[in-house]
Amino acid sequence: MNNMINLVNENLEKYMEIVYPEDLFKSMRYTVLLPGKRLRPVMCLETCRMKGGNIEDAMPTACAIEMLHAQTLIHDDLPCMDNDDYRRGKLSNHKVFGEAVAVLAGDALLTFAPQVIAKFSQNLSPQTVLRVLNEYFTYAGAYGVIAGQVIDIESEKGNVSGDKKSVLEYIHTHKTADLFKLSMRTGAIIAGEDDLEDVTQFAQTLGFAFQIADDILDEISTFEEMGKTIGKDKTAEKLTYVSLYGLDNAKCKLACLLDECYDKIQESRIFKEIIDGIKKRVGI
Amino acid sequence: MNNMINLVNENLEKYMEIVYPEDLFKSMRYTVLLPGKRLRPVMCLETCRMKGGNIEDAMPTACAIEMLHAQTLIHDDLPCMDNDDYRRGKLSNHKVFGEAVAVLAGDALLTFAPQVIAKFSQNLSPQTVLRVLNEYFTYAGAYGVIAGQVIDIESEKGNVSGDKKSVLEYIHTHKTADLFKLSMRTGAIIAGEDDLEDVTQFAQTLGFAFQIADDILDEISTFEEMGKTIGKDKTAEKLTYVSLYGLDNAKCKLACLLDECYDKIQESRIFKEIIDGIKKRVGI
Repeated sequence: MNNMINLVNENLEKYMEIVYPEDLFKSMRYTVLLPGKRLRPVMCLETCRMKGGNIEDAMPTACAIEMLHAQTLIHDDLPCMDNDDYRRGKLSNHKVFGEAVAVLAGDALLTFAPQVIAKFSQNLSPQTVLRVLNEYFTYAGAYGVIAGQVIDIESEKGNVSGDKKSVLEYIHTHKTADLFKLSMRTGAIIAGEDDLEDVTQFAQTLGFAFQIADDILDEISTFEEMGKTIGKDKTAEKLTYVSLYGLDNAKCKLACLLDECYDKIQESRIFKEIIDGIKKRVGI
Repeated sequence: MNNMINLVNENLEKYMEIVYPEDLFKSMRYTVLLPGKRLRPVMCLETCRMKGGNIEDAMPTACAIEMLHAQTLIHDDLPCMDNDDYRRGKLSNHKVFGEAVAVLAGDALLTFAPQVIAKFSQNLSPQTVLRVLNEYFTYAGAYGVIAGQVIDIESEKGNVSGDKKSVLEYIHTHKTADLFKLSMRTGAIIAGEDDLEDVTQFAQTLGFAFQIADDILDEISTFEEMGKTIGKDKTAEKLTYVSLYGLDNAKCKLACLLDECYDKIQESRIFKEIIDGIKKRVGI
């Protein structure tokens, strides 16, 4: 897995060359290149490998998904959103570059990410590039991640319209699982796979588990461990798995979901590492 | 021209169906559908027509460019950017939907716009769709419009590094002319034209003229005429054509540029209407 992470980091660096205006590119790079687990790009590359594809062909898409993920972090941390001064143990983007540049760096990444797919996927046919871009647009935009973020924000302060359990499932599906689905589906498509049902279902389960782990960690972890402000869900009265079902039930559900994933992914050492990593962080 | 504007409006409505989460789609639609001149989509459609293409083939791209333009307005008006409460005579997006939803609606449009190109351009070959998307990514993102916005913001309060005339040209080129170039180049590409030099040069001149007109209007117009706060360039000590060369020189330069455009576009009634419209607004 470390080998893949290094490859992703090298390529992120390569795609994001600093040109004028330097502040803009430095701000974009700042958050994209913060040390991280590169979970989504690794999932994309590993799915491509598992389906018999060449991981180099999936590299632009894998890196684009990491850029998109970084974009959500930059805008999420803004004062008008989650208002967080720290991310991965470092100052948030807007604390370093100012709010205006942070907004624009996030905006720029939203166009830069699909541009990387279109520009660097020379080994793929135009049809496949378009198919990957359509996946990207579907899961990254108003029908995907952003839909999840809007409902997440609107459900603060206990202000939930409708059945809380369904709303929570909607938030987890779109805010988190959609990028996992995007990663695995595009990895499979690039490898030439037509049947995407299994990877979509797996990504949904793993994404759901990952978000429950995040909800748990916001409750039990520390700033030092997480590199961001902790306990914010409670302060904001956010709808989370922990607030709805309690900590013990959340841990139990998480263990179940991760076991389900583990059974399905026998053939991948890397996915097992990802699952074990989540277990270890939450202590189950 | 009114006929084309109506067609654009009908298709914008059609592409932007309201689905859950409704607040997000309502916020996206609110700014996109504000009554406007639809200058950029009309330029795209008219260039396509002039080059022998079918304007229906260019409709998704034309509408995508209008969505992108609306996105820049939503984020430009945010308190951390230009902080404007009004746009086209109506409350700004964030004054109606709140800052968080306005940020996310802008983000969503940045993915929605190229998605409309990819999804609805069925009459174009995958190669042509990819070529259009590459144009879109080049002019819409960190190498185009956003680069212009960053330098525009950084050059406030007289804080310009480098030669002011070059910096002003950079801002005008990227912040304004780049979307004109995108509109005309994609219109030409969709019509099957390979030589894009003439339309690019024309769009650069018209874009430059349009931005000078905007600088003049910020000085001489009223809120009632413009539908947004007036005199803000001066307050923010922005680098504009008027602040650098004076009002009379700006009007003179504008007249020259518009005459140049007029001479080059003899065959298009619609471009003549656009040029006459700018002259009329500024009173030259």
